Amino acid sequence: MSIGIGIIGVGTVGSGVMELLQTRAATLGAASGLEIHLAKICARFDSELAPYAQAGLSTTKDVQELLTDPDVQIVVELAGGYDLPKSWVSQALMAGKAVVTANKAMLAKYGGELFPLAAKHGTEIRFEASVGGAIPIIRALRDAFVASDARSLACIINGTSNFILTRMAEEGMGFQQALAEAQALGYAEADPTFDVEGIDAAHKVAILASLCSRKRVDFQKMHVEGITRITAADVAGAKEMGCVIRLLGLVEVHEDGVDARVHPCLVPKRHPLAGVNGAFNAVFIDGSTTGPSLLYGKGAGRLPTASAVVADILDAARRIHLKAPVVDLSWFGGEEAKIRPLDLAEGRYYLRFEVADRPGVLGRVATILGTQSVSVASMVQHEGRSGTTSMVLDTHVASEASIQAAVTEIGKMPEISAPAVVLRHYDRGFAE
Amino acid sequence: MSIGIGIIGVGTVGSGVMELLQTRAATLGAASGLEIHLAKICARFDSELAPYAQAGLSTTKDVQELLTDPDVQIVVELAGGYDLPKSWVSQALMAGKAVVTANKAMLAKYGGELFPLAAKHGTEIRFEASVGGAIPIIRALRDAFVASDARSLACIINGTSNFILTRMAEEGMGFQQALAEAQALGYAEADPTFDVEGIDAAHKVAILASLCSRKRVDFQKMHVEGITRITAADVAGAKEMGCVIRLLGLVEVHEDGVDARVHPCLVPKRHPLAGVNGAFNAVFIDGSTTGPSLLYGKGAGRLPTASAVVADILDAARRIHLKAPVVDLSWFGGEEAKIRPLDLAEGRYYLRFEVADRPGVLGRVATILGTQSVSVASMVQHEGRSGTTSMVLDTHVASEASIQAAVTEIGKMPEISAPAVVLRHYDRGFAE
Repeated sequence: MSIGIGIIGVGTVGSGVMELLQTRAATLGAASGLEIHLAKICARFDSELAPYAQAGLSTTKDVQELLTDPDVQIVVELAGGYDLPKSWVSQALMAGKAVVTANKAMLAKYGGELFPLAAKHGTEIRFEASVGGAIPIIRALRDAFVASDARSLACIINGTSNFILTRMAEEGMGFQQALAEAQALGYAEADPTFDVEGIDAAHKVAILASLCSRKRVDFQKMHVEGITRITAADVAGAKEMGCVIRLLGLVEVHEDGVDARVHPCLVPKRHPLAGVNGAFNAVFIDGSTTGPSLLYGKGAGRLPTASAVVADILDAARRIHLKAPVVDLSWFGGEEAKIRPLDLAEGRYYLRFEVADRPGVLGRVATILGTQSVSVASMVQHEGRSGTTSMVLDTHVASEASIQAAVTEIGKMPEISAPAVVLRHYDRGFAE
Repeated sequence: MSIGIGIIGVGTVGSGVMELLQTRAATLGAASGLEIHLAKICARFDSELAPYAQAGLSTTKDVQELLTDPDVQIVVELAGGYDLPKSWVSQALMAGKAVVTANKAMLAKYGGELFPLAAKHGTEIRFEASVGGAIPIIRALRDAFVASDARSLACIINGTSNFILTRMAEEGMGFQQALAEAQALGYAEADPTFDVEGIDAAHKVAILASLCSRKRVDFQKMHVEGITRITAADVAGAKEMGCVIRLLGLVEVHEDGVDARVHPCLVPKRHPLAGVNGAFNAVFIDGSTTGPSLLYGKGAGRLPTASAVVADILDAARRIHLKAPVVDLSWFGGEEAKIRPLDLAEGRYYLRFEVADRPGVLGRVATILGTQSVSVASMVQHEGRSGTTSMVLDTHVASEASIQAAVTEIGKMPEISAPAVVLRHYDRGFAE
C-alpha cells in the first residue's frame, strides 16, 4: 500500500522534507512497512517548483488542486502564517485527510478550532516540528511520558534569542551588536520582532502549556517579555552571581490555573539549561513519575526540522494504513485554561535601577523594598557616565506583586533616570 | 476491549509498575482508548504477593501458571538475570505473547535469539526501560529520529558510576570513600562490580550500538573499562584541564565496523555531558539530519523506570488491539557487527605515571612517547610520598596503538612503580 502526500511550501523546511523523503525512501520504507509517494507539491513560484517538475513530480501553484486531489492522504503544511494555512488545514481535515505541520503560529492561534475539527472528521494534526525542531518533545509528552504528569516545564525554545544571549555572554557585546551578528549569520530575520520580543516562544509555550494542562492556553493572555532591554551590564551582573541569562518559557500547572509565561531569567551555571548555547533549544520537564528530564537539540534549521516532519508523516501514514484511532485532542476546543496571575508568582529577583549618583539613594530604594517586605540579598553599584550609577540588587524570595509595587514606587523617585530592569531567577533544579 | 498483562517480579520496578497501572488507570485508558487489566502477578515470595492477593488480584509463585494463562497477552519481565528470564521470555514469545522488559543483561546476551524468535511468532519485545530508565532513548532512535542516521552516540548510562565520579569531583574524595557513600545511600549494590567495572554500561551500550548499526553487537567483544583505578588526583588533574571525568559509553558506526566501548573519559566542562551529575543518565546522539541531540533524565529508580515500562505496555497493547505489524528486529539474529579494533581510534590522551623522583625520568618518558609519534601538550608533576611522583601528561591527538605501545614501553622502565592510568579525552561537541 502506498500513501500519497501533498506538500504545501517548499522553502527551507519543505525542500528538506523533499530531500529526506527522496534520499531515505528505503530506510523509511523498512521502518514503516509502507511506501510513501509524493502525490502533489505546491508552492507560490515556478522557480521553487521547477526542480521537482523536472524530476517528474506533480507540481502546482494552485493549493486547491492539492487539497482536492484524492491521492493526497496527508497534507504537509509548511507555508507558515496564520489565516491562509488555517483555511487550507481546515479544508484538508474536513476532507478526512491527515495534516502534518510545523506552523506554531497557526496552532497557537487556531488550535481551538482545528483540533476539534480533526477529531470530528476522524483524522489528526501532527505537529512535532512546530515546537523545538528536531527535539521530540511532542511525542515525549504524548507517548514516552504517558505515565507521568508533566506539571512543570521550562524551555529555551527560541534559537534567535538564545544565540544573541550566548554571544552577549561570550563576548561582552551589547544587544544591538549581537542582534546584528545574528542577522548577518542568518540566525535572525531582518525584522526580528517575533523572536526577540518572545512572541515565537509564546506560540510554542502555549502549545506545550496546553498539552501539560490538557486545556487550551491562549498565548495572548500569557505574560511575555523579550530580551531587547537586556544590556551587557545585566549579562555581566548575572555572571557575577554565577548565572547566565536565558529567555525561558515556563509552564506550571496549579490547582487554580496554569502559570505560562515567557521572559528572561537568571539561570545558575550548574543547571543544564545554562549550558544550552547558541541557536540550540532545550526543554526541561519535571514529571511526577519520570522525575526531571531534559531534551536538548537543534530547534530549527532545514534538516533538523525536516526530520521531525518526516517522522510525523510516517506516523500519520501508519495510522491511516492501520485505520487506527487518532489521539483525541478535541479538548483544545473546550474550556480555556485559566492563566494564573503573575502576581501570585514567587521567587528571587534581579533588579537594576539607573540612579543619579547622590547620597541617600540606596537608603530610599532599600526602604521602599522593605515596605513591600522585599529583602535584599546583595547590592552592587557600577558608576556610569555623567553622574549616573547602575544599582543592581539581588533579592531573597519575594512575591511578584511586592516586587512590582516596589519597582513602581521606586520609579517615582526623582533620582531614577530609566525604567527598572526586573529579571527573575530560575531556581528549579535537577536535584535527586 | 481489555488487554491482560502478567507481571513477573514485583520488586522495586515491578511494584512501581503496579502502582502506576492502578493509580493512573483513567489517564492511561484515555491516552490509549484501551482498558488494561492485571491478569496475573508472579513473584518468588508470598510476602511480595500478599498485598496484591489481598487486593483481589490473581497471584502465583509458579511462573508457568502466568506464562500459560491465555488471558495474559503481554508478559512484563522484571525479574532480572540472564538464563531464567530468557527461558520465560522465549516461552511467552512462542505463545505469541508480547514481552515488555527492563532486562538489559538478558537482551545484551540473548537478543540474537530472542528478537528473531519474536519476529518468527509475529510478536515483539519492547525494552525502553532496559536503557536509561525514564529517558526515551529507544523510542527516539526508532520513531523520532527515523529520518536520521545515529552514527555517533555518547552516553552516561550507569548511575552508580556517575554518582561516584560526581562525589569525587565535588568533595575531592577517593574512589573507595565515594563508593562507600554510594552504598550507604542505596546508589550502589553491596557487590558493585557490575556497575563500577562498566559491565552494566556495556550491556546497554551493546543494545544502543546494535540499534545504531542494525547489526548485533556483542558486549563481550567490546573494550570495557570501569572507574576503579580513578584516583582523587586524576579528578583534580582533569579539573585543572577544564574537564570532568565521566564513564562514557561510546558508539561510532564506521564503514569498516562499529566502534563500541565503555571507559572513563575527560569531558570538557562546557559539554552538556559534563553537567550530568549524580545518578542521572544522558545520551548524546549526533544524527546525520537531526544534528546533535541530548536526552537527559533519571536512569534508574522505581517510578522513573516504571514509567518507561508502562509506556511500553501501552504501546504493546495498542499494537495487539490494532493487529498492527511489529517493528522487525530480527536482524539481531543475523550477521554480527564487526567491532572496530580500539587500536584504530584516535584522540587526545591523559596519561598518569607513578615514577621514582629521579632526574632524567621525564626525558626518558618523553623520548619513548616521541618514538611513537605521540606529542605532549602539557605535563605536571605532583610529588607523592616516599620519593615517588605522579607525572601527568596531556597529549595532542595520537592513535590508540601508539599510546598503548608507548605506555607498555614506559612501563618497563625501572623508575615506574605502578601501571599507568590512561584516560581518553572526549572531544565531540555541540558545535553549530
